Amino acid sequence: MSKHTVLFLPHNKKILVQENENLLSAAMAAGVHINASCGGEGVCGKCRVIIEQGSIEGGITEKLSREDLEKGCRLACQSIVTGDISVRIPVESVVDAGVLKLQSVPRRTAGIKQMQLEELKEKGLFTPPVEKKYLELPEPTNEDNLPDVMRLISFLKMNHNEHRLVADLPVIRKIPDVLRANDFKVTATLARPVQEGRKTHIINVQSGDTTGRNYAVAMDIGTTTIYGQLLDLHTGAVLAQDGDFNGQISYGEDVISRIVYAEKAGGLERLNNVVIKTINKIIQNLIKHSKINPDEISAITLAGNTTMTQLLLKINPRYIRRSPYVPASTLYPPIKAQALGMDLSDHVTALVYPAVSSYVGGDIVAGVMGSGMYHSKELTLFMDIGTNAEVVIGNKDWFACAACSAGPAFEGGGIQFGMRAAKGAIEDFSLDPVSLEPMNITIGRVRPKGICGSGLIVMVATMFEMGVINNLGKFDRNLNTPRIRETDGIYEYVLAWRDDTQIDRDIVLTEIDMENLIRAKGAIYSGCMTLLEEIGMGIQSIEKIILAGGFGSYVDLEKAMTIGLLPEVEPEMVTFIGNGSLLGAKMSSLTNRLRKDVVEVTRKMTNFELSETNSYMDNYVAALFLPHTDINLFPRLKARLEARKAMQSELDLDN
Amino acid sequence: MSKHTVLFLPHNKKILVQENENLLSAAMAAGVHINASCGGEGVCGKCRVIIEQGSIEGGITEKLSREDLEKGCRLACQSIVTGDISVRIPVESVVDAGVLKLQSVPRRTAGIKQMQLEELKEKGLFTPPVEKKYLELPEPTNEDNLPDVMRLISFLKMNHNEHRLVADLPVIRKIPDVLRANDFKVTATLARPVQEGRKTHIINVQSGDTTGRNYAVAMDIGTTTIYGQLLDLHTGAVLAQDGDFNGQISYGEDVISRIVYAEKAGGLERLNNVVIKTINKIIQNLIKHSKINPDEISAITLAGNTTMTQLLLKINPRYIRRSPYVPASTLYPPIKAQALGMDLSDHVTALVYPAVSSYVGGDIVAGVMGSGMYHSKELTLFMDIGTNAEVVIGNKDWFACAACSAGPAFEGGGIQFGMRAAKGAIEDFSLDPVSLEPMNITIGRVRPKGICGSGLIVMVATMFEMGVINNLGKFDRNLNTPRIRETDGIYEYVLAWRDDTQIDRDIVLTEIDMENLIRAKGAIYSGCMTLLEEIGMGIQSIEKIILAGGFGSYVDLEKAMTIGLLPEVEPEMVTFIGNGSLLGAKMSSLTNRLRKDVVEVTRKMTNFELSETNSYMDNYVAALFLPHTDINLFPRLKARLEARKAMQSELDLDN
Repeated sequence: MSKHTVLFLPHNKKILVQENENLLSAAMAAGVHINASCGGEGVCGKCRVIIEQGSIEGGITEKLSREDLEKGCRLACQSIVTGDISVRIPVESVVDAGVLKLQSVPRRTAGIKQMQLEELKEKGLFTPPVEKKYLELPEPTNEDNLPDVMRLISFLKMNHNEHRLVADLPVIRKIPDVLRANDFKVTATLARPVQEGRKTHIINVQSGDTTGRNYAVAMDIGTTTIYGQLLDLHTGAVLAQDGDFNGQISYGEDVISRIVYAEKAGGLERLNNVVIKTINKIIQNLIKHSKINPDEISAITLAGNTTMTQLLLKINPRYIRRSPYVPASTLYPPIKAQALGMDLSDHVTALVYPAVSSYVGGDIVAGVMGSGMYHSKELTLFMDIGTNAEVVIGNKDWFACAACSAGPAFEGGGIQFGMRAAKGAIEDFSLDPVSLEPMNITIGRVRPKGICGSGLIVMVATMFEMGVINNLGKFDRNLNTPRIRETDGIYEYVLAWRDDTQIDRDIVLTEIDMENLIRAKGAIYSGCMTLLEEIGMGIQSIEKIILAGGFGSYVDLEKAMTIGLLPEVEPEMVTFIGNGSLLGAKMSSLTNRLRKDVVEVTRKMTNFELSETNSYMDNYVAALFLPHTDINLFPRLKARLEARKAMQSELDLDN
Repeated sequence: MSKHTVLFLPHNKKILVQENENLLSAAMAAGVHINASCGGEGVCGKCRVIIEQGSIEGGITEKLSREDLEKGCRLACQSIVTGDISVRIPVESVVDAGVLKLQSVPRRTAGIKQMQLEELKEKGLFTPPVEKKYLELPEPTNEDNLPDVMRLISFLKMNHNEHRLVADLPVIRKIPDVLRANDFKVTATLARPVQEGRKTHIINVQSGDTTGRNYAVAMDIGTTTIYGQLLDLHTGAVLAQDGDFNGQISYGEDVISRIVYAEKAGGLERLNNVVIKTINKIIQNLIKHSKINPDEISAITLAGNTTMTQLLLKINPRYIRRSPYVPASTLYPPIKAQALGMDLSDHVTALVYPAVSSYVGGDIVAGVMGSGMYHSKELTLFMDIGTNAEVVIGNKDWFACAACSAGPAFEGGGIQFGMRAAKGAIEDFSLDPVSLEPMNITIGRVRPKGICGSGLIVMVATMFEMGVINNLGKFDRNLNTPRIRETDGIYEYVLAWRDDTQIDRDIVLTEIDMENLIRAKGAIYSGCMTLLEEIGMGIQSIEKIILAGGFGSYVDLEKAMTIGLLPEVEPEMVTFIGNGSLLGAKMSSLTNRLRKDVVEVTRKMTNFELSETNSYMDNYVAALFLPHTDINLFPRLKARLEARKAMQSELDLDN
């Protein structure tokens, strides 16, 4: 796809964008503020810009008069970049050239890193654990009347160099008729052993050549949401994706309330039942969307946190929430999917990702595997930020890990207008340094409904860096804008006035929201710090950061460092893998090596119970500031804050 | 138990018998004929004897007058030997001294050979595949918060030198509560791998010390009857036994009719269902009789012929009865007993004996294993005679095997008054050479109901050797006795008159019965001969014969050789193991070595399809005589027949 240059004036900032990029988003990416209340729906009419050179598509609405249009005036949020252009932000949006310097730094999102299929194939790692072989067997005679299964096994040995084969009962049951349905021309499905030297199971046998139709399901069993992918094991492609709320959600929002429910009479069975129901619904959707024959699904791999895994397997999670926090097991044997209640054929075995401890579960192990961290030489910090947050530090030889009691602030929990990253969530934000008017961009470019995690981070970071809030997350009481106000004794900033929203109410960010956010980011940061201390290392040893989580690829890394959620490193060091749990489940479905290595990896993962670690509380208290009590840990931010202070003094002197 | 000498006069035959032996049985064993019609119930009053020295217990009934009693007269069938005695058979039962020489040779039953538990223990072979270990685990602390399963595995590694351990899902489900129920003092049940180097599965975990309570079920799935044993894996003892008709019997008596039924819509499911029902009933009875807790049953091992095994596992047996007679498989993976519908705990795995071919099944393999033939250096002929007959020849290095289409004559099939070896079946028989009056001994010493296999063999052999029938099984038409008569054109011998039976009818042995018997024994003998020819050996190479089958330990070996059922060898070479299938299932439950060796053994077993072997029909036709067209194959019998002929001529000259 071609790229185009957008020059923003009077800021004189250039940015290279993809063909068809939205102009408001391009401005945000360039760190150029344009007032925008309605999230990008085009109703507030505030994001007017003038196209000075080149031309754009769209941008024309009833909000603009003929006169405006003749001047080249457009609504940025409705404009699509299709060529090189120069765009002027009208002066009413900026105060003067000096103030321009107070604009945000350009946003830096993490590079998205997922193992690529071609790369896997080149490395010889595209070896799905379940493989189909088409075979033309000799027909039995009086001289050669081997039993059907032995005929198949013997042919695979002689002609395909396959050894240590064993046929499962469903295969023995169907083989007589399948062999004879098409002159002994059949396709055998072979499930490779997880460990070298063990048996390869013949799990299915089909008449004719079905090698082109071999599928697997990968699934992330999240506390809140369950995501599934249907994978084509022949090509490696993702044929369908689906997600849905975990049906357990009506029995409690977090793992602790689920455990409490599971301890009640019949509770475990009910929670197990509803999660299986959600899984089956997702499987149904995957089948529907990909239009495949369900019988061609050969495998399912699932990953989830330890509590979700125990509930999935109907193992009482009672002791997970009691000191010393002992799970029933961290390794789970392969289990027939049907025995777990899944609507899959009887030849399908469910592989469930192993865990490390009660609070570092299979979802994290899956992320460590799927991200490739587990075979990396570089010292890597892996952070999975979802309903809770887990941290892993290590390289291919060792890993230290811990769960941080961060709570669900980054998924919208404990935030008055918090919501998950769904349509209508403000996911990006900028603030005019003088008028303090907002620039909101929502998911789906519709009027806002609430704030998601990435939006929250950008808001708090921006307000802090502009001095709108102090390092405790309290608003400067002297600022003069109607958007900052006190309601029922709580200070808040109005992100969108009632008319610009979908919810018929002002959407605000309160000081209580910020307290919760600070506690959450403090828990995560202090988790990293404590872990580093325990292994006798400092933040400077980290060579790479891998971010995982529903959290989103839109997170502005510099902003996440500004609030002290991430340690301050060069943004190039950070990669984002999205849903690590789903990625790990997917990668294990495509390459058997991961399934072989994972047990060894979990053995190398040393779990630290932060609540039992003496230094943790000190680190936590120190992290309950923006970004931290020790600003020297954030040298780039410190420099920016000092530069801004100096510039502000200059401006104050000028005025 | 003490033994006593019984001297029979005027025969002057001595026999050593066990304390409390029945006197009629003692006479039979000594080859002394005493007229006895009622099977030993004491109602016909014919078996009068005079105790000349010593005394007996019992033998006094209303059939004897005071005068008789004073003379020392007793009914043999009601008398129990309790000391050394001399017994005179009254002259009315024997003609004269010359005739005495025409009496039967003393009966020679096979030595019963089963591996003895003490022998196993001495050889270090008493290593049940499922073992319990009592463990006192350290309780978890903050410093040592291993997951429950890993705590158990790690303790077993460190303190019991157990490796390659894996916990099954049911264990993971119950371990948290079980560990905490009794201060982490638990008993783990370990299931050993069948193959070296594979995993040991932890299949159960129980609170406290339950090592003394570890049981297994061994089962023979016969076409007609299913037998089960409950084994104490701690001591090796058989705690209970039970047997019942296979519920499938109402859908056909033999395997072919079962296969035909299984091919009908829903037929396979129904046959599977009813056999599982029978198995569950037997399991229930075993539990009831042994008064154990069903949850303490750790394993079940089953053996059956190939059709019974496929029906048990719900595998369509359709192609077993169609040339080239291909079974679905001959190896069956371990399967959860519950998945097969068995009423056993979820930690119990069913092990099903592997087969060799469609008609040499797991029951035969079990016999080869259980009898110890599989590790014997001697060239052994193994014969299992039940609803059908199978023959195995070989030693520890190789085996040739075949199924003979013998039919169920030895289990009473195709015999007018044939019945299984149950109470009221004539199981032993002798004939007065002059009066041609019978001596019937029934199972349970009650009035006869019919004839079982061992009785049939003795009758036909005795009549043949006495010249009552010729080598085609036809009665000498010139004999003068009311017991030989023609009914509806068929000659028959009346074994018991109506009043002496339980069934209110004369019980007879017909020429048609004998034709069927000759066909059955001919099929078995010619099977052995064909197999020997195929491997280029003669009958003289055989060093040992092992007999298995419902057939019974009462079979008189010399008689079985007389009719040509067994090749003529020294009776010492023959041992009897009873139900070989059940024995194999039992031995596999007690010693894991058998389960390890069995796959290798089935690989060494070469199956011969007799119907596809050219020489078989010739051998069969040659065997349709008593004992065979070639009398030189039976030199001892030939000598006896010649001696008898000479003596008969002498007697004829005397009279």
